[in-house]
Amino acid sequence: MERNRLRELLEKVAGGKLDVSQAVERLRILPFEELDFAKVDHHRSLRRGFPEVIFCEGKTAEQVEKIALKIIGQGVNLLATRCAPELFAALEKKLPGAVYHRDAALFAVEQTRAEKVGKVAVVSGGTSDRSVSEEAACTADYLGCDTKRYYDVGVAGIHRLLSCWEEIRLADVIVVVAGMEGALASVVAGMAEAPVIAVPTSIGYGASFGGLAALLAMLNSCAGGVTVVNIDNGFGAAYAAAVICRKLHRSAGE
Amino acid sequence: MERNRLRELLEKVAGGKLDVSQAVERLRILPFEELDFAKVDHHRSLRRGFPEVIFCEGKTAEQVEKIALKIIGQGVNLLATRCAPELFAALEKKLPGAVYHRDAALFAVEQTRAEKVGKVAVVSGGTSDRSVSEEAACTADYLGCDTKRYYDVGVAGIHRLLSCWEEIRLADVIVVVAGMEGALASVVAGMAEAPVIAVPTSIGYGASFGGLAALLAMLNSCAGGVTVVNIDNGFGAAYAAAVICRKLHRSAGE
Amino acid sequence: MERNRLRELLEKVAGGKLDVSQAVERLRILPFEELDFAKVDHHRSLRRGFPEVIFCEGKTAEQVEKIALKIIGQGVNLLATRCAPELFAALEKKLPGAVYHRDAALFAVEQTRAEKVGKVAVVSGGTSDRSVSEEAACTADYLGCDTKRYYDVGVAGIHRLLSCWEEIRLADVIVVVAGMEGALASVVAGMAEAPVIAVPTSIGYGASFGGLAALLAMLNSCAGGVTVVNIDNGFGAAYAAAVICRKLHRSAGE
Amino acid sequence: MERNRLRELLEKVAGGKLDVSQAVERLRILPFEELDFAKVDHHRSLRRGFPEVIFCEGKTAEQVEKIALKIIGQGVNLLATRCAPELFAALEKKLPGAVYHRDAALFAVEQTRAEKVGKVAVVSGGTSDRSVSEEAACTADYLGCDTKRYYDVGVAGIHRLLSCWEEIRLADVIVVVAGMEGALASVVAGMAEAPVIAVPTSIGYGASFGGLAALLAMLNSCAGGVTVVNIDNGFGAAYAAAVICRKLHRSAGE
Amino acid sequence: MERNRLRELLEKVAGGKLDVSQAVERLRILPFEELDFAKVDHHRSLRRGFPEVIFCEGKTAEQVEKIALKIIGQGVNLLATRCAPELFAALEKKLPGAVYHRDAALFAVEQTRAEKVGKVAVVSGGTSDRSVSEEAACTADYLGCDTKRYYDVGVAGIHRLLSCWEEIRLADVIVVVAGMEGALASVVAGMAEAPVIAVPTSIGYGASFGGLAALLAMLNSCAGGVTVVNIDNGFGAAYAAAVICRKLHRSAGE
Amino acid sequence: MERNRLRELLEKVAGGKLDVSQAVERLRILPFEELDFAKVDHHRSLRRGFPEVIFCEGKTAEQVEKIALKIIGQGVNLLATRCAPELFAALEKKLPGAVYHRDAALFAVEQTRAEKVGKVAVVSGGTSDRSVSEEAACTADYLGCDTKRYYDVGVAGIHRLLSCWEEIRLADVIVVVAGMEGALASVVAGMAEAPVIAVPTSIGYGASFGGLAALLAMLNSCAGGVTVVNIDNGFGAAYAAAVICRKLHRSAGE
Amino acid sequence: MERNRLRELLEKVAGGKLDVSQAVERLRILPFEELDFAKVDHHRSLRRGFPEVIFCEGKTAEQVEKIALKIIGQGVNLLATRCAPELFAALEKKLPGAVYHRDAALFAVEQTRAEKVGKVAVVSGGTSDRSVSEEAACTADYLGCDTKRYYDVGVAGIHRLLSCWEEIRLADVIVVVAGMEGALASVVAGMAEAPVIAVPTSIGYGASFGGLAALLAMLNSCAGGVTVVNIDNGFGAAYAAAVICRKLHRSAGE
Amino acid sequence: MERNRLRELLEKVAGGKLDVSQAVERLRILPFEELDFAKVDHHRSLRRGFPEVIFCEGKTAEQVEKIALKIIGQGVNLLATRCAPELFAALEKKLPGAVYHRDAALFAVEQTRAEKVGKVAVVSGGTSDRSVSEEAACTADYLGCDTKRYYDVGVAGIHRLLSCWEEIRLADVIVVVAGMEGALASVVAGMAEAPVIAVPTSIGYGASFGGLAALLAMLNSCAGGVTVVNIDNGFGAAYAAAVICRKLHRSAGE
Repeated sequence: MERNRLRELLEKVAGGKLDVSQAVERLRILPFEELDFAKVDHHRSLRRGFPEVIFCEGKTAEQVEKIALKIIGQGVNLLATRCAPELFAALEKKLPGAVYHRDAALFAVEQTRAEKVGKVAVVSGGTSDRSVSEEAACTADYLGCDTKRYYDVGVAGIHRLLSCWEEIRLADVIVVVAGMEGALASVVAGMAEAPVIAVPTSIGYGASFGGLAALLAMLNSCAGGVTVVNIDNGFGAAYAAAVICRKLHRSAGE
Repeated sequence: MERNRLRELLEKVAGGKLDVSQAVERLRILPFEELDFAKVDHHRSLRRGFPEVIFCEGKTAEQVEKIALKIIGQGVNLLATRCAPELFAALEKKLPGAVYHRDAALFAVEQTRAEKVGKVAVVSGGTSDRSVSEEAACTADYLGCDTKRYYDVGVAGIHRLLSCWEEIRLADVIVVVAGMEGALASVVAGMAEAPVIAVPTSIGYGASFGGLAALLAMLNSCAGGVTVVNIDNGFGAAYAAAVICRKLHRSAGE
Repeated sequence: MERNRLRELLEKVAGGKLDVSQAVERLRILPFEELDFAKVDHHRSLRRGFPEVIFCEGKTAEQVEKIALKIIGQGVNLLATRCAPELFAALEKKLPGAVYHRDAALFAVEQTRAEKVGKVAVVSGGTSDRSVSEEAACTADYLGCDTKRYYDVGVAGIHRLLSCWEEIRLADVIVVVAGMEGALASVVAGMAEAPVIAVPTSIGYGASFGGLAALLAMLNSCAGGVTVVNIDNGFGAAYAAAVICRKLHRSAGE
Repeated sequence: MERNRLRELLEKVAGGKLDVSQAVERLRILPFEELDFAKVDHHRSLRRGFPEVIFCEGKTAEQVEKIALKIIGQGVNLLATRCAPELFAALEKKLPGAVYHRDAALFAVEQTRAEKVGKVAVVSGGTSDRSVSEEAACTADYLGCDTKRYYDVGVAGIHRLLSCWEEIRLADVIVVVAGMEGALASVVAGMAEAPVIAVPTSIGYGASFGGLAALLAMLNSCAGGVTVVNIDNGFGAAYAAAVICRKLHRSAGE
Repeated sequence: MERNRLRELLEKVAGGKLDVSQAVERLRILPFEELDFAKVDHHRSLRRGFPEVIFCEGKTAEQVEKIALKIIGQGVNLLATRCAPELFAALEKKLPGAVYHRDAALFAVEQTRAEKVGKVAVVSGGTSDRSVSEEAACTADYLGCDTKRYYDVGVAGIHRLLSCWEEIRLADVIVVVAGMEGALASVVAGMAEAPVIAVPTSIGYGASFGGLAALLAMLNSCAGGVTVVNIDNGFGAAYAAAVICRKLHRSAGE
Repeated sequence: MERNRLRELLEKVAGGKLDVSQAVERLRILPFEELDFAKVDHHRSLRRGFPEVIFCEGKTAEQVEKIALKIIGQGVNLLATRCAPELFAALEKKLPGAVYHRDAALFAVEQTRAEKVGKVAVVSGGTSDRSVSEEAACTADYLGCDTKRYYDVGVAGIHRLLSCWEEIRLADVIVVVAGMEGALASVVAGMAEAPVIAVPTSIGYGASFGGLAALLAMLNSCAGGVTVVNIDNGFGAAYAAAVICRKLHRSAGE
Repeated sequence: MERNRLRELLEKVAGGKLDVSQAVERLRILPFEELDFAKVDHHRSLRRGFPEVIFCEGKTAEQVEKIALKIIGQGVNLLATRCAPELFAALEKKLPGAVYHRDAALFAVEQTRAEKVGKVAVVSGGTSDRSVSEEAACTADYLGCDTKRYYDVGVAGIHRLLSCWEEIRLADVIVVVAGMEGALASVVAGMAEAPVIAVPTSIGYGASFGGLAALLAMLNSCAGGVTVVNIDNGFGAAYAAAVICRKLHRSAGE
Repeated sequence: MERNRLRELLEKVAGGKLDVSQAVERLRILPFEELDFAKVDHHRSLRRGFPEVIFCEGKTAEQVEKIALKIIGQGVNLLATRCAPELFAALEKKLPGAVYHRDAALFAVEQTRAEKVGKVAVVSGGTSDRSVSEEAACTADYLGCDTKRYYDVGVAGIHRLLSCWEEIRLADVIVVVAGMEGALASVVAGMAEAPVIAVPTSIGYGASFGGLAALLAMLNSCAGGVTVVNIDNGFGAAYAAAVICRKLHRSAGE
């Protein structure tokens, strides 16, 4: 589109309908959002086939409803994270087609269904990490990845992890969710060939300092290839995983 | 090999040369390193075509030499990071073929040269981040990625980044290296389609607290898809990038 | 006045009505509040034409009412910040003329209206920063600045900021409000000619540590000329901005 | 210039020497640095009459020399901060005209001398803060401000500050430099009408934690209008002060 | 059991009912949980005669009930920690035989009663540490130790500790529970011959930072032989104490 | 008393009613609490004429009542701090003679009234520090000091402090209570001859980190002679002040 | 003196030699240091009979020499702390009469010798705390207190403290110096009647975090009456102790 | 002995050679070190057969020599930790019989050799942890434990640990030494029956914050029975291990 606008302007110059000085001035103030590089950004999520995402925390039901309806109106998919049950209760009737995942505290409105691209394994340590794990798994799912869950395979009983390792290692990206001492990320990365994205959780007490212990442990992982997202940021890990999966898909397709 | 050993043992059982009780006992204590799952780990780097890596910090010249010669003796490539100039000076004559990169503080011995797989862009904020950026870029290079450097494009002058954006955006993985406030990662991730791996550096003073400011900034990036490695861990970011590139390559190849 | 008192005393000495010893004693204990330097301080806000300010947090409705009525009784303007809706509800009827700004959580009683002096742009990253941004914008407004708001122009989509840059750059002072990684301050300061005052907000979770990540990022800004106020201190930034605007006004006027 | 290039291109279109498609393409990839908004940034310091600045810490003598000569070659003024005596010793002969300030650890090459614009008072607590204070004072001086120093007026003896207050209060901007508990900033801001920029220093030991105590104190100042820069960042405070002074000058001049 | 499975398989090989290739394949993928080393882990607590443990915090009544019934169904003892009174109220009727300890916030179902093995002394500083002390004491008791409590013997009145020292020193393991400055651990360890396990508690305010002060104090104990567990982790200390007591018992028995 | 018991025992030995071996044994196990050095501790508060003190936080009404009645039964004075209004409401009827101070959140039962010994000035910065200031002032009062309050004399308006300085300086001990940046302690100590005890308060937000900013500032005070207590520990400061006052009294009396 | 200057001025007014306007002007700008309240501060240390103090750290030999000679020239005593052996070596010949205490890293020039006032006990935990303990003890000594040292009586062997307790308890002020876990302060304060001033030291490693562990422990002391100074601030503790001793002396004397 | 002294005193009373009042007085001041409970402490290490220990860090060669000779003179064994090579070089000739362990940075003088009691396994993650591991292993050895080393078995290659697990699990106490993310402690404790003592090391960089990451990870271990010592405190872990081993020995022997 912006190319068209640029073309129109230049054609006016070429056709003598706009003199050069005026053209210089208009080009100089041409809003940046009209340029390709900006559009890329603006339309980035849509072009990837990713749904639009709303982060609900700190927003009122009215605000979420308004933004959601606007997105739905564009015919694209919608994903809304950090949506407490009470908030969804207030939204439910106004957003027909919205599917709520209580454990993940998110809801989605799928208007088109894309084929799955890439395999994501969400591996987590304890049952208490379930909420963050589900945020990651549901997000990866809605972002179009073929997602499998491997929960409660923490290092306190290393055999649990080993017993399902043959499956996990087939994933394109492994998301490891762990609280407390976060050791699971290192153990997984020590065995994996796939990229490992670690999500520290705020599960723990005392000297876990709200997830700081797990975060530091993951950043200091002695196993190569681990990258880390913010504490409890299951969404972010899944998003990064989905970006990699799309890349894989395109490389394969091109 | 371990399959062969297992086969031999079972053939002895099948042939009546080993009774069942003895076989049970030998299988039970069969070193785990002999099993497939372990070998996978042990040989992981080699199978990927990655060189063996030595982290030199805290090792004496003798220790590095010894490990290096052992690796070289196996005919595989070697990468040695965090190698101060003095350390390399002490090693140089004993490791013929070793190429030293002073800025990156690493050296490599390449005995086989693999074709390049995947494009990595290393983008950095200021000239002071050069050392970490070079560790990332050289590592990515030696791990087999087609690596390009875009240095000194920090957010204090956003136009510098924009002016080379068309090239950067073509990368398969973008490694962003930044100290001080680490804002570059967010700005890049806000525009990029590729996975972004952020490396906070310890560049700064006062309230940068040795890179903590940049680390926290990157973990809290408002732009989706950013994952983070430890402060100054250029190697780790490049390693993670190379893992993704190999994945891309295999997806494309399959 | 205190000059007059001093003169009177000295005239009594000169006229022989007060002996020297008594004068020495009275001068020695002359209350400091009577001296110029102290008065300056006491009347500082009023002389600038700034309203008196009440920080409501931690005060009861009775306390706020009492202080407010005393100020209003002096015929001067009043600004009351950090006033929760419930608190204002309890005060509303007792303070006729009080105008409440829910988003900014502040109310004002304007008894005289000063002409606007200086242009302040309040630029903010995300919609979640709205409350702090509004505290800054309303405060700047009531302190007599011509205030414009540029919200939701965070670095995750740099084009949004660029598209309204031509306007923002005309401000005399730019207040940048941002949470999470606080990168907006650096990007704005990298382009601005005006003084930039950065306000980190406590928006974020996990490793944002209540705004610490944004605070550290802003303090470490690689762009020159950024100064920083406390986390969530929209009022403080606006106050500092207004002080600069008054200075500009006087320089221009003198 | 970039306007000229744009004009040339458009004239070719108008003259039929370049067809519209080619023009679209060339405009689309026209480096952003060529556009006005970018140049504004690039030339920001020059247009303000500010010298170019080099931060020497972490740079070799060769690097500083190279950058310095390039700047000097453009005929503009140069300021180089955080330059240790040994570094300057290595540079001295190669940079004729360079004047070194040992206490401030900076040097300057003045090729043109601008008239002084605005008054800056640098107020500091103890003799140990001298180095940071001098960085601030010399920087303000070279950035074109009429700068006065008021050192060793810390709050342990409040009378020292009061005794020179009459002079300090006449400044357009007050830069307060203090280590240890940083209380000076609050006391000064409690009395001042001018904007106050506080610089915490790393002076202290034990629980000063490298300047953290002073930094936190200044950010929490109970006196309105204080803004803060990074620990030991005398340069940053002076730069911000100079930005305000230029603003004052232009307001006055327009 | 797993030995039996292995034996069966090998007998089939020996008997010619399974050919070697198939056997190799089945052995290679034999779940690790089936191997001895893994079973050890899985059955570790049971073999020691320790009850199975549920950490209730963050679990719903339904989840706890389900896990508890499964454990009870196996005929083994059950210990459930961090169980708030409301949670137990919801569980009480569904778990006949469950005994609740309000101060310790835990409940237990004892189906078999083991003889006591080893003496544990739980020593605590103030009455406010009671809850953590009781978690430690009840846990040690249920894990089969002969447990004695010595409460309110903090260092503010050293004579209280001294007056019951003759008894305390007879313990096989001493668990010291203390908040605030945690000095009790050092004083006890300075006098004790037995292993001392220190539990910092979150009791305190201000600069106790949720137990950090006590934790750091205990880690820095000048008295040899002190080991430390997480803040408020009475269970962990008792568990470690019980592990030592079992070791003592076996050494004595062998 | 314990001297009497010792005497009795020795008289039995001297009188041949107890043989030496038995005496050795009894002396060896004589509880330490019976010895002088221990009694000193146990009776320390009573001998000083200080009331017994209960720290109510974390105790139930029943617990406080029980302890309080026991103390009252001994005929001595009682002071109970950190007692919320609801807690006192539950206790009021059961503790006749108890006087509650809402601002200080403490109550006292005075059964004997000692003459006042020593002058304590409680100086505080802002109205928000009132609660801690009152805890300090009421405590000092009940511990027998002649206590004066100087509130709202913070450094943002240094003249307020100066105007009542002539009175403050007459105190034997000055307790300075301040939140935010805690600068008041330094200013007061810079002028005072009396010992200064500083109490940081948790008043503030953002980078005050719950009083940490004020605590660090006070510990780093550039003015000699400042000692510091825990955040919000008004009681502790008053207790230390009272200990000094008693010392003064005895020195004077001896 | 300043009274004399004031008297002179007023006598000139009384005598008609100075007219009232001039007198007003001169009084208004009369440096505050000339007024009583200021002099109090300025001469505070001298009037107490305290020597003038130089903090040498961060000062050059020339700077220390210059300040020292100026003080010596006034005939008063001098104390110079944090003076490394090399620094004193450079000063020794230029400051005849200076006595250096290597362990305390301080030197003094005593020109008049005051009688000792008050008893200070310096109690320390380990031999590694010697340097800070000596700074405290020597300082207390030079500030005129009758100072006794009780070293190496840490809580790892509580009997060592108890064995010299009878002497320690006779002190007017007890300064407790301890690193690592800092428990000694609580134990001493639990037994003492005298004011206890605690000095955390940076002795320790790992999680002592440069004295933070001891500092937090001391601030959280469960024993009443402990006040705390900065890490390693032996001087500050001794100064506060001496201030109390002088108070005692005056109370006794008046 | 002290019993004898007590007996003597009482016999004098019984024999009428000492009157009761004098006896009361002498008993009251009888040094506490003479009582049983104190002696226990004083002689604790010797009675256990443990050598006397010197912590050399921060001590001069003269100081170490003096203490060492005194201990050797008593005919007991000596262990001196944290002794740098240069320090030992200065001591070597003066302490005949001293054996230095360079990796462990400790030396010992064994004058009597006790039989080994209990098995300690020292398990460590990486080669960089060698120094701390050796401090632990040598200490355990000299404290009389039968000590085995299992180094370089970190979780980045879990098979290495598994392959020597059969041996490790036979230990009476397992000391786990690990830096970086410290995950090894959890993995080991998840499989072990023996008590596990974890030693975080300062190995790492960036966000390892000098061992803080490993320390927090270990304190938050999800595997039961882990207790933790200070960062790099190999000695402390070995000491605690030896205390347990002695307990085991006595239980077995009694």
